[in-house]
Amino acid sequence: MTVTLYDLAATTLPKDPLSPNTRKARYCLNYKRIPYKTQWVEYADIEPLFKTLGIAPTSKKPDGSALYTVPAIYDPATGAYVSDSFAIAQYLDKTYPDTPKIFPSGTVSLQAAFDDAFIGNLGAMWGFVLLAAATKLSPASEEFYRRTRRETFGKALEEMVPKGDEAVKAWKAFEAGLGMVDAWYQRGEGKGVYLLGNTPSWGDFVVVSVLNALRTLWGEESKKWKDVLLWHGGRWKARAGSLKEFETIL
Amino acid sequence: MTVTLYDLAATTLPKDPLSPNTRKARYCLNYKRIPYKTQWVEYADIEPLFKTLGIAPTSKKPDGSALYTVPAIYDPATGAYVSDSFAIAQYLDKTYPDTPKIFPSGTVSLQAAFDDAFIGNLGAMWGFVLLAAATKLSPASEEFYRRTRRETFGKALEEMVPKGDEAVKAWKAFEAGLGMVDAWYQRGEGKGVYLLGNTPSWGDFVVVSVLNALRTLWGEESKKWKDVLLWHGGRWKARAGSLKEFETIL
Repeated sequence: MTVTLYDLAATTLPKDPLSPNTRKARYCLNYKRIPYKTQWVEYADIEPLFKTLGIAPTSKKPDGSALYTVPAIYDPATGAYVSDSFAIAQYLDKTYPDTPKIFPSGTVSLQAAFDDAFIGNLGAMWGFVLLAAATKLSPASEEFYRRTRRETFGKALEEMVPKGDEAVKAWKAFEAGLGMVDAWYQRGEGKGVYLLGNTPSWGDFVVVSVLNALRTLWGEESKKWKDVLLWHGGRWKARAGSLKEFETIL
Repeated sequence: MTVTLYDLAATTLPKDPLSPNTRKARYCLNYKRIPYKTQWVEYADIEPLFKTLGIAPTSKKPDGSALYTVPAIYDPATGAYVSDSFAIAQYLDKTYPDTPKIFPSGTVSLQAAFDDAFIGNLGAMWGFVLLAAATKLSPASEEFYRRTRRETFGKALEEMVPKGDEAVKAWKAFEAGLGMVDAWYQRGEGKGVYLLGNTPSWGDFVVVSVLNALRTLWGEESKKWKDVLLWHGGRWKARAGSLKEFETIL
């Protein structure tokens, strides 16, 4: 029985998946050593495909209609389709109780709070991300992505990239946001690369997925990525590399 | 050997301590069954007393000078003075390893994130809190509190209380903020009153301290407190009462 993981088609493949959220689901599957294969879906095809398959939307569009997002999984062992990376993680912990836990020691609630707080701290990041992401899609998906983002934000992606002093300020705010996350890590007894000390768990999957999605977006040799690796005692480098053994793409 | 807990003198005593932060430290001491006695300190006396004792400040005032806050503890077993409720909790877990853990299962980092995210969600609460808190202090401390808050916020406490439509909006925002916290609790497998399921831990101490400080401020019979108890399936009532056995005031 092989699980299907629905992930986003992108020009960064086959080396690097583009979406941070699908990276989270892949870490979960690899960490648990659950056999799976990836089905790459064009951005514009997510909604029609998921509607056909009966995969639940995860959120709403600005106009109130259903929003369908990757990742999703299909598990032939149970017949279940599950969308939303957090829900996928919970499903896998519950359905495969003999595999390593994504939420060990009853930490689901704390991990949910961490997840929200982590993303909440990174508000300044989006200006450096959205346009770059668009250019890593196929031409058809890029057009779709640009159009739907314009509906969401009311302006073109180019207008969302901070410039001049505003860019300097936003970059500092992004550094400060990551600094708060670094401070949470540093408060742990082990001061190790994992939030819980010795074992990776959901929060690490979230952080490392975002880090590596940024590396993919900006490029390993970019000034932006090199900046991140220098911040906060250089600790982001070890964190970004801390889940390498769970990055196999099946 | 009896630990000294420095807590805030208030007119709500001896029944109810006023400060949410000192409540957290009291939960820690009672939960670990560490013998302690409380020393009640007038608001205006915190800084001179702590300077004399050599207790470290926890933050900075708007003018950049050191800010001294309760709680603090003195532990005669080690000679240590510790300030900041989170640092006190970490100190007690480390110094008394054979007592129940405030941060079980290596959750310090996740609990720190929860703590920040919890308070971050409650921004709308302060307008309903600060003036009420001032009126529960002794006349001398109230004068001091009002003066120092004015320095911090640039206006009188009365001006910070939302009125009319603004109050309705702020109250809804406070409800929504608590709703996000409720959602974290509800995501846990147990859906119990404790974040980790069966055992209380730091995050619960934080949440329940704030809840009971609000009850103390507003009064058990107030419309505000009754509203809170009705929100989110009425689940705040069980949470507010979930640590009763650790509320003894020594």
